[in-house]
Amino acid sequence: MDKNNRSKTKITSKEDNYSEWYLDIAKRWELYENSPTPWCITFLPKAVSIWEGIKSNVSDILKNNWVQDIYLPLLIPMSFLEKEKDHVEWFSPELAVVTHAWWKKLQENLVIRPTSETIFCDFFKKRLNSYRDLPLLYNQWVNVMRWEKRTRPFLRTAEFYWQEWHTLHETEENAYDFAMNIHNNVYMETIREVLAIDWIAWEKSPSERFAWALNTYTFEWMMSNWWALQMATSHILSQSFMEQFDVSFQNKDWKKDYPFYTSWGVSTRLIWAMISSHSDDKWLIIPPKLSEYDAVLLPIYTKDNNEDIEKYIWKIGEILTWNKKTVSIKWDYFKSQIWNNWKTLIDNRKVRLWEKINDFEISGYPVRIEFWDRDMDNNNVVIVSRITWKKEIVKLEEIKDTVDNMLKEWQEELLRQSTERLEQDTIVCYSINEIGEAIKDWKFALYEWDLNEEFETEIKDKFSATIRCIPSEGQYTDDLLTLKDKNNVKVIVWRNF
Amino acid sequence: MDKNNRSKTKITSKEDNYSEWYLDIAKRWELYENSPTPWCITFLPKAVSIWEGIKSNVSDILKNNWVQDIYLPLLIPMSFLEKEKDHVEWFSPELAVVTHAWWKKLQENLVIRPTSETIFCDFFKKRLNSYRDLPLLYNQWVNVMRWEKRTRPFLRTAEFYWQEWHTLHETEENAYDFAMNIHNNVYMETIREVLAIDWIAWEKSPSERFAWALNTYTFEWMMSNWWALQMATSHILSQSFMEQFDVSFQNKDWKKDYPFYTSWGVSTRLIWAMISSHSDDKWLIIPPKLSEYDAVLLPIYTKDNNEDIEKYIWKIGEILTWNKKTVSIKWDYFKSQIWNNWKTLIDNRKVRLWEKINDFEISGYPVRIEFWDRDMDNNNVVIVSRITWKKEIVKLEEIKDTVDNMLKEWQEELLRQSTERLEQDTIVCYSINEIGEAIKDWKFALYEWDLNEEFETEIKDKFSATIRCIPSEGQYTDDLLTLKDKNNVKVIVWRNF
Repeated sequence: MDKNNRSKTKITSKEDNYSEWYLDIAKRWELYENSPTPWCITFLPKAVSIWEGIKSNVSDILKNNWVQDIYLPLLIPMSFLEKEKDHVEWFSPELAVVTHAWWKKLQENLVIRPTSETIFCDFFKKRLNSYRDLPLLYNQWVNVMRWEKRTRPFLRTAEFYWQEWHTLHETEENAYDFAMNIHNNVYMETIREVLAIDWIAWEKSPSERFAWALNTYTFEWMMSNWWALQMATSHILSQSFMEQFDVSFQNKDWKKDYPFYTSWGVSTRLIWAMISSHSDDKWLIIPPKLSEYDAVLLPIYTKDNNEDIEKYIWKIGEILTWNKKTVSIKWDYFKSQIWNNWKTLIDNRKVRLWEKINDFEISGYPVRIEFWDRDMDNNNVVIVSRITWKKEIVKLEEIKDTVDNMLKEWQEELLRQSTERLEQDTIVCYSINEIGEAIKDWKFALYEWDLNEEFETEIKDKFSATIRCIPSEGQYTDDLLTLKDKNNVKVIVWRNF
Repeated sequence: MDKNNRSKTKITSKEDNYSEWYLDIAKRWELYENSPTPWCITFLPKAVSIWEGIKSNVSDILKNNWVQDIYLPLLIPMSFLEKEKDHVEWFSPELAVVTHAWWKKLQENLVIRPTSETIFCDFFKKRLNSYRDLPLLYNQWVNVMRWEKRTRPFLRTAEFYWQEWHTLHETEENAYDFAMNIHNNVYMETIREVLAIDWIAWEKSPSERFAWALNTYTFEWMMSNWWALQMATSHILSQSFMEQFDVSFQNKDWKKDYPFYTSWGVSTRLIWAMISSHSDDKWLIIPPKLSEYDAVLLPIYTKDNNEDIEKYIWKIGEILTWNKKTVSIKWDYFKSQIWNNWKTLIDNRKVRLWEKINDFEISGYPVRIEFWDRDMDNNNVVIVSRITWKKEIVKLEEIKDTVDNMLKEWQEELLRQSTERLEQDTIVCYSINEIGEAIKDWKFALYEWDLNEEFETEIKDKFSATIRCIPSEGQYTDDLLTLKDKNNVKVIVWRNF
């Protein structure tokens, strides 16, 4: 809620120009700002707080799975990347290279990490001796850098933030089980329950994997402009990658063996997914679970009522077991409170009402509670939802339930809308012609596929479409789609863009 | 608690060789590891969790002061640093410079931030128009890079993590008030209450400030080897710095004016302070408030009792209102729980007892609770403090109070010891000779000083000592020291090293 930006940028309509609409929304609601560093952006506080919200959700589940947080160096010796030919070829165009320090040429160039597999290999190598040491499970929340040629805020910029985790397992089955567990408990949970976005997920087709990966997993999401977007990726790396770095262990039979390596990541790209999934032609919509604050308290000051209104708010605070410990704040701008498990903000500035309401609207926070003179005697307050714009006058003792319900309902409603869009946009196909029709119509085409590569090439040539993912058994049928014959459907095909 | 490192490094005694002792402790207890990137280290999970603990404490207070988190780019155009001559001269030897991307020479070199004042100036410039926009209060939790020639883990390495905040104020008084507020509520609180370290703090003498700072504040701490260490620094920047970047605003009289800029930071150097303040010749000691877990639960399995012991733990969990929601964890290593406001870890591995106890000892977590066969019938458990090694047999219903007290007492005891050392090592002096004696004796010398520079030079020449800081009025006398004539004491002098 930056108080300086009062610009009333006109927002391009989503239908007229999706790209412009997105930029307008993200700029108007102060999520990013262009930066003087080329190909980079400044992440404004609202974006940072959304990312912190995602982080705290993912972190908790990771810790329960005994994945430990670590910081490996930002800079990676160039020779590390060069060890794996496919890997360096993939990333080398995008590398930012540090050649100098102390104004002298370095003995060896260092690159700013585009991803950390190679330096994790070095780390693992030192820690892995026997099968007893496995699994090794590490994660880091860091910034990475890939020099993309065309940038778009949060989707593609040179510097972005992500969580990357790296694990080693004794067998491919262990690696797969772990992958499945994390997929279900971390990504599925976070993307659906927190971001309120529905998706189709699982394996990439062999033709769409990284060269150095045994398998690649993904979440495919149907954006509101009918693009398909990849939200999270994970890989099980080939053992040849392990051989290059000589990451090995003594197995149960006392023989040298190579572990199975999985790496995973979700990035600040999720902010992009969130913005473009829920927002409309006018407003930025943040799912309540990702909102920095749940409610803003607006005392409506008049000339004479300052003290009364403040007393009134404190009274309510006491009823709702305000956390008194953090109250004594000297700074006279806003105050944040944990109020009965909500995070609330008091806008106690002595400014005009429209200014407070304007700031609230820009904030994206879901609920505001107004405290008026006229309501004090009846112990009432006015509650307004920023989502439905419904206004309710409620008794003090009803505040808690009213706001709780507003938040819960809106979180569910956003997911419902997302699921509905996904269902509408996914067509079960029984022939190549039906696939063609679906693709022309900008839909996901579901089709039973026997992994025949010729068929894949034919679809690609005829309809310029690629396979987006091979959904995991049962997952999408149970959770996502009402299909007549679930078991025949194995593949999702989608128009390339 | 990395299960792979069983190395029993012998720890050099503190008295024999302080530097070696520190490295031994930090390595043996797995806080860092050397990295393949020169001048950098790998921050191992224990160090990351300590840093996260510091972060969560500081973050909460910052948010209550309406300082917002932001991410400005990692890379700063070289021209920005060159705008402020003193600034670039100070940092230029330590800069890591990115000269290439896409294998091509960049139009302008970019440096990895050594600190972010210059790019914040650019950011502020765009947001500042009128005095109404002030104050502007931003913070970021990021990595920075300074190519130090001599490295030492957590104290000085090329890459480190820190929190840097940057604020603009209308008047010097506003800036000073804000600084005072943050100093008292954030740094004082965190360093004393959380890190359990006592210190002497406030202004640097004019001769010790940065060239571009109007004033510099610091926390000086007496390490257990009698070095003086600076733990946190903050600056009020000169307005000439603002002029260079043309960060200005229209003041109340409709005239162009320059704001007062403060910048602040605490870094992962605090991990160094924590280690070397509390640890001894054998153990790493982590203050309970910074420990990732408060207690480890150790079921002692025998051949036949697996089920019984597990049931017993669950029973206790229920008594102490275990948070059931997060219990269903598939992964069979450790489980972490919020248990009655403690963070607990169950070591339910079926390994030998000594291995579990050894891991507990390495962990640095303050308390373990053992569950034995023989105690189940009497509803007893064994509680062991890793600090005092006191063993207590307590009834189920006493667990909570016993552990709560252990944690509380130990946190207080660590601070008490730190305060005691500081008091012993601080001498009130009334003459230049007494100052000389104190310095020779490796003490802090307190002396009333009239800001006379000749006197400062004399001390410097005679005793190779510098002024460490000018304590704020009353602060050290009330909180810290029992001095006979409080009001005469204004200055701290200390031997340079």
